[in-house]
Amino acid sequence: MADKAEIQEAIKTQGEVVRKLKAEKASKEQIDEEVAKLLELKAQLGGDDGKHVFVLKTAKGTRDYNPKQMAIREKVFNTIISCFKRHGAETIDTPVFELKETLTGKYGEDSKLIYDLKDQGGELLSLRYDLTVPFARYLAMNKITNIKRYHIAKVYRRDNPAMTRGRYREFYQCDFDIAGQYDPMIPDAECLKIVHEILSELELGDFRIKVNDRRILDGMFAVCGVPDEKFRTICSTVDKLDKMSWEDVKNEMVNEKGLAPEVADQIGEYVSMQGGMELAEKLLQDPKLSQSKQACAGLTDMRQLFSFLQLFRVTDKVVFDLSLARGLDYYTGVIYEAVLTQSGPAPAPPQQQNGAAGEESVSVGSVAGGGRYDGLVGMFDPKGRKVPCVGVSIGIERVFSIMEQKAEASAEKVRTTETQVMVASAQKNLLEERLKLTADLWDAGIKAEVMYKKNPKLLSQLQHCEDTGIPLVAIIGEQELRDGVVKLRTVASREEVDVSRAELVEEIKKRTFQ
Amino acid sequence: MADKAEIQEAIKTQGEVVRKLKAEKASKEQIDEEVAKLLELKAQLGGDDGKHVFVLKTAKGTRDYNPKQMAIREKVFNTIISCFKRHGAETIDTPVFELKETLTGKYGEDSKLIYDLKDQGGELLSLRYDLTVPFARYLAMNKITNIKRYHIAKVYRRDNPAMTRGRYREFYQCDFDIAGQYDPMIPDAECLKIVHEILSELELGDFRIKVNDRRILDGMFAVCGVPDEKFRTICSTVDKLDKMSWEDVKNEMVNEKGLAPEVADQIGEYVSMQGGMELAEKLLQDPKLSQSKQACAGLTDMRQLFSFLQLFRVTDKVVFDLSLARGLDYYTGVIYEAVLTQSGPAPAPPQQQNGAAGEESVSVGSVAGGGRYDGLVGMFDPKGRKVPCVGVSIGIERVFSIMEQKAEASAEKVRTTETQVMVASAQKNLLEERLKLTADLWDAGIKAEVMYKKNPKLLSQLQHCEDTGIPLVAIIGEQELRDGVVKLRTVASREEVDVSRAELVEEIKKRTFQ
Repeated sequence: MADKAEIQEAIKTQGEVVRKLKAEKASKEQIDEEVAKLLELKAQLGGDDGKHVFVLKTAKGTRDYNPKQMAIREKVFNTIISCFKRHGAETIDTPVFELKETLTGKYGEDSKLIYDLKDQGGELLSLRYDLTVPFARYLAMNKITNIKRYHIAKVYRRDNPAMTRGRYREFYQCDFDIAGQYDPMIPDAECLKIVHEILSELELGDFRIKVNDRRILDGMFAVCGVPDEKFRTICSTVDKLDKMSWEDVKNEMVNEKGLAPEVADQIGEYVSMQGGMELAEKLLQDPKLSQSKQACAGLTDMRQLFSFLQLFRVTDKVVFDLSLARGLDYYTGVIYEAVLTQSGPAPAPPQQQNGAAGEESVSVGSVAGGGRYDGLVGMFDPKGRKVPCVGVSIGIERVFSIMEQKAEASAEKVRTTETQVMVASAQKNLLEERLKLTADLWDAGIKAEVMYKKNPKLLSQLQHCEDTGIPLVAIIGEQELRDGVVKLRTVASREEVDVSRAELVEEIKKRTFQ
Repeated sequence: MADKAEIQEAIKTQGEVVRKLKAEKASKEQIDEEVAKLLELKAQLGGDDGKHVFVLKTAKGTRDYNPKQMAIREKVFNTIISCFKRHGAETIDTPVFELKETLTGKYGEDSKLIYDLKDQGGELLSLRYDLTVPFARYLAMNKITNIKRYHIAKVYRRDNPAMTRGRYREFYQCDFDIAGQYDPMIPDAECLKIVHEILSELELGDFRIKVNDRRILDGMFAVCGVPDEKFRTICSTVDKLDKMSWEDVKNEMVNEKGLAPEVADQIGEYVSMQGGMELAEKLLQDPKLSQSKQACAGLTDMRQLFSFLQLFRVTDKVVFDLSLARGLDYYTGVIYEAVLTQSGPAPAPPQQQNGAAGEESVSVGSVAGGGRYDGLVGMFDPKGRKVPCVGVSIGIERVFSIMEQKAEASAEKVRTTETQVMVASAQKNLLEERLKLTADLWDAGIKAEVMYKKNPKLLSQLQHCEDTGIPLVAIIGEQELRDGVVKLRTVASREEVDVSRAELVEEIKKRTFQ
């Protein structure tokens, strides 16, 4: 622990950082972040003084969801889950932590980003890093060879957070995978159909789904003369083409990775190609590429995939793009990635999302990714039995942040409750009558609220409706009680009608039917 | 790391443990647990031999949810969330881990059960232990003084798991709380109404909701002559009355906690009392108890509470029970606990659930608990500003296990998908036609499945429907394609009718309307 003088010095410095930011009118989030650091320093000091300064914050890189954010989250999840269910998927859940060993050796050098639990005696545990490795563990453990499942849950990465840009240490993944031995490209095509459906329904603007195949990439590297041992590293350089110019990529290949310039140029020709089924057919005739068995297998499947995509009517958005690489090791066949092509309101670089499996960086605007990984389950099976899998992961944090920005920009207020009616009174001493009516409505399945006050003002009851978007008010007074009616007020129009108690439930249902 | 000989010795010993259990025909779970330990030991050795034995299991005290369990979980959550929404609640979410400091000093000696994260540089973090402390932190941090919110999420306790009996280290909590300064007992009564609604709707069998008040307990201790400093410890002894006889409880009070026998006897008289509003009125006249200001305040509120409960029509299940204590420190007023009074199929002792706040053990059969905690938020506020809160926590793991047992016992199969129709063919070479029709149905919002095979047998397509409960099959063949129709088969009755393609969507909707 640093000594007191050191901390006091640090507090002084940090105090100045905060003052400077405030003077510069920096963003609230930025200021809050620095204030939190300041408070933390003060807390360290506080311990010595006997007076403890409590740091009131969430852990670095995490956030609370307030009711408004939850309402948006619920809407997005509903759209996505409906789609998964429409395609006949089941769902599973796995624990938030796994044996450390389960995650070991699955994420390459990103393993350093895994959160470990403290050794408090017993097993060594780690927080899950994605949903794909737990899924593969689940399949192997339960000897499941066929399943179509979705899994929506939080995953954890000790990454450098950039919360203003939507990068968190705790974030949602939203995965759909099909495991099983099937005829080629049918489940793969369904995954792309799902991406198409979800992105269309979420109305995030126009998008494109890039498709490629690991075998085509490997075949291409082989025929261009890339040495076997450099396939992976050249692959991850190709993966940067969506963020870097060809010149820079070539430069990296030649100068950093030691490729001959003419080899790089040959790769450059291929990775500039984009098209559809006709490109797959053309490349099957390519004198060079057709010499690779691997490439031919990938191209034949690609042709087949496009024929299914035509039947699914999604070829308008799908592009066969030879520059799509995706960094991850364990893809074995088709790979894909969806990108938004319009910049929305203040487009934020996305959370690092893995595809169907694992981690790679994705391009700005990427909102979904995945591919085929036929070897992963076998890594968990004691006898190495393989279960072919293909899947897709929706980059949901990016979707949330777009939807939140849209909600901010829109005039329409996001409701955080679903209350249909407020039970109110203009007169005093009617608490019991209000509670009785409210209970009647609850028991009839109506979503109803009542103020927890003996004698609330009518104005404050109406104001609560305005604030929270409650559409109706059921007002009772002495006269209404005598007549056996309720004054039903429509908040928006201020129109009021007397409705008999017997007909009240039906009337509320009619007026709030969605 | 232990050396090789040591590990080999441990493997030998553990091997015998497993053999012995198998010979004794111990439970599968017990054997699995010991086998896992054996495999772990072997894995340690494996590293040295170069051959790694992978341990295929979830972390101790945790479990996967398979699709069937997820279907039950979804049903239970829907019931509970509908109720919370009917009462106008918003929802929030908080991160799975908090600063360690946030949890410090909130759980008394149960703090030892908190999972800490490894110090990997940066903040010291712990997994949340309940949802109440994060809620209080959220309120203080955002200076919120009024909110009605629910929160459903997993919490973590390094408890001794007893998974066969539904006790896990990762388990759900399902909390509803009302924060704000309101007129007495109105939000408290709503919490009890909510428990009544949820337990009735879940159809778990008959139940009873016990109610008491911390101030009544404290007043009772005072007038019986319990020294102030023994209030808490005597309170936790009283809390055992639902599991122990009065004789044993008295014995603990006198012999372990040093109470005079005549003091214990006086307590014994009070804690045997049960009733409703009339008991509150009677005790307000009690010559001894009425001398305690605290007790009188509690009893006056209790009388008020029962008058609201009458309006809410829930007094049939609610009992004012002076023996209800609930172990937790921070309750300040009303406390309650719901118990199932019928033993269901093989009643399992419940997961330790906290009430609205924190941890205590609950009686067998307890499925909900909570109370008023007016001081907790103030612990987080820099200026100690209080926000009165009352809440309830549904013991959802216990509910899951009852529902799972019910599902096992019932003849009805739990569906894990919602698929309405299977697109099938009896003839070969119709894959493309099947895919096209399936896409038509998806695009029309119908939940449809199709087999990922070129030429599946009709029988296996029908079998899949039987297995997974898909009610309809849309069969196409050459003849149907020529006629522009689909043969729509009802799986249950085997009845088939020709439906024109144009009317297919409507027909499926009509037949699968729920």
